[in-house]
Amino acid sequence: MDMETGNRSGAVADPVGLIIRQKDPNNLEMPFDQLGDFITPSELFYIRSHFPTPKLDPVACRLSIRGAVHRELRLSYAEIRAMPARTCVATLECAGNGRVFMVPPAPGAQWELGAVGNAEWTGVSLAMLLERAGLADDVCELVLEGADRGVPKEEPKPPGTISYARSISRARAMQDDVLIAWQMNGQDLTPDHGYPMRAIVPGHYGMASVKWLTDIVASTQPFHGYWQTSDYGYWDDSSGVPVRRPLAEMKLKSQIARPRVYETLQPGRPYTIFGAAWAGDTDATEIWISLDGGESWVQGDFLDPINRHAWRRWKYDWITPAKPGRYTLLARATGADQRVQPDRHDPNFGSYVIDHPLPIEVFVAALSQPG
Amino acid sequence: MDMETGNRSGAVADPVGLIIRQKDPNNLEMPFDQLGDFITPSELFYIRSHFPTPKLDPVACRLSIRGAVHRELRLSYAEIRAMPARTCVATLECAGNGRVFMVPPAPGAQWELGAVGNAEWTGVSLAMLLERAGLADDVCELVLEGADRGVPKEEPKPPGTISYARSISRARAMQDDVLIAWQMNGQDLTPDHGYPMRAIVPGHYGMASVKWLTDIVASTQPFHGYWQTSDYGYWDDSSGVPVRRPLAEMKLKSQIARPRVYETLQPGRPYTIFGAAWAGDTDATEIWISLDGGESWVQGDFLDPINRHAWRRWKYDWITPAKPGRYTLLARATGADQRVQPDRHDPNFGSYVIDHPLPIEVFVAALSQPG
Repeated sequence: MDMETGNRSGAVADPVGLIIRQKDPNNLEMPFDQLGDFITPSELFYIRSHFPTPKLDPVACRLSIRGAVHRELRLSYAEIRAMPARTCVATLECAGNGRVFMVPPAPGAQWELGAVGNAEWTGVSLAMLLERAGLADDVCELVLEGADRGVPKEEPKPPGTISYARSISRARAMQDDVLIAWQMNGQDLTPDHGYPMRAIVPGHYGMASVKWLTDIVASTQPFHGYWQTSDYGYWDDSSGVPVRRPLAEMKLKSQIARPRVYETLQPGRPYTIFGAAWAGDTDATEIWISLDGGESWVQGDFLDPINRHAWRRWKYDWITPAKPGRYTLLARATGADQRVQPDRHDPNFGSYVIDHPLPIEVFVAALSQPG
Repeated sequence: MDMETGNRSGAVADPVGLIIRQKDPNNLEMPFDQLGDFITPSELFYIRSHFPTPKLDPVACRLSIRGAVHRELRLSYAEIRAMPARTCVATLECAGNGRVFMVPPAPGAQWELGAVGNAEWTGVSLAMLLERAGLADDVCELVLEGADRGVPKEEPKPPGTISYARSISRARAMQDDVLIAWQMNGQDLTPDHGYPMRAIVPGHYGMASVKWLTDIVASTQPFHGYWQTSDYGYWDDSSGVPVRRPLAEMKLKSQIARPRVYETLQPGRPYTIFGAAWAGDTDATEIWISLDGGESWVQGDFLDPINRHAWRRWKYDWITPAKPGRYTLLARATGADQRVQPDRHDPNFGSYVIDHPLPIEVFVAALSQPG
């Protein structure tokens, strides 16, 4: 499907590069106004790296499956690629996507809307590998470790250099949609996206889909590594006493791709507002748009069917106001579980999970004004 | 002139909104790959604000000219607009433009390439107002003060809330191209750009062109306000002992607008590299492009004549390599004074004056790869 929505000719014709949010390591954002097809071209897919990109030799490197297993495995890239492959479409969103909308500003990469993308991933099912290795009965988590290494920044932090590592529960790991992927959109992974192999954990924030994957460790204890506790964690105060927990499933969220912030629109004209909605633990079933900063809401239409863990693009055919001025647009999704996006950011998530409707301020020009 | 350069259809057809670098106060960047005409449309012009946008009543507000003058003036917006007007084209660049390229990262708004623009400004000559007021003989600087107020962030900082203020030398102020402007590109200033009145100091970094201008104070002493010393200052060590000085004229600089960082290009095809070059205290007279990360340089062509204080767009007609892979493009201007942009950033400027050639990394696709 070739989308031409949002009244901007040529906008989706070609991948047009990324926005730098941090130069080194590479943290690059999709210009989200370039949203087009259901599948995000790999060239437009955001890049979120904690450390410099490791250069892995696909011949020499091994994927090690170890820990509380009956048979340790050390698999070459060629062996992995020779196994039966699965393909799935999954939306990955950085847990900090939308951070630049936080007031007051929060430290960290100042992502706007483009630290999210929807790609087709091909690889071997993690569950199949774990079955070959044979998990001990008391394994509760699988720790995924990448070849990217460095010194974390935020306190509390361990001393010295560590590898990027995240865990997922045994239950999640044993679902066959969790992949050890080697392809993205039908092409081998690029170095920025985890070449030669990465994890894909559909429905989880991107931090779980560990790039440059080298080790999978079966653990009989919950993993409390840096990116599970200090970073990518939140305070759960549902029991009264706040306890630290790792982020996991993406919250229900929707975003406006077009118009872009501060775009100037012509008055009294048809304009198709265009965006996407997604969730990790439910499906987006309704999309509501506000044209007046949240005073009132109108319903938009989805362009894609429900496909668990993939986003749904949506549109709303607007007639722009005749009155010139500044207008604040919002989008808010409803989930299959009847929950809606919250009105505001939950501070228990720190500078993560920015899942409230994000204001897109646009201008409607005066009729006489050149456009 | 309508430019279609960089092989991207539609790229310059319409202003397409801004990139958020900081949400509140508004710090919004032009997507620099949208560079098109010589004049930057107002809708695409970057917004750099230190504090929330003041709402000024154009009927009630006054521009006060005071300090060491023979006749204090208090002028209404209507009086200013009724005076003989001048129009000039001037490039404004934020002194922190390019900061996201700094390694390691520097605090502050993470501008990429788009905190620069070239507009036509209309207003009254500051020199004319100063002649009416009559400067005392011993006046050395004019302090320009805006209505925007707040608490500065960086140390050393004064206690409490202060107004944004910058000074320029008497000599610069008396040149008739320094404007008290009320129009940008033939339209009244928008609130974000300083409505109802702002200073325009052609050739200086944007920090001198004080928005929401309310006060001009003739001073017999050099001004040592926060934005003259703590912020927007640098260490001048030319005499051996470093001394703190305010930033002033923009350094010679050039930027690549297209391709954008991480854009994917087709192999062995014509591609017009497109950009702009400018300077505050000289004119850009040559533009050199490197297609191999600085190993070798080829000369590009200017598209605009020399027009002091306005940028010159340039192009280079490239045949992309046949060999797929990652390529680093650079641009480097030479000035009328025969000086060239430096190879690296001068740390005496802190996180300002990022005037070395900034690397634009692009990919050349394999022939078989869909585009």
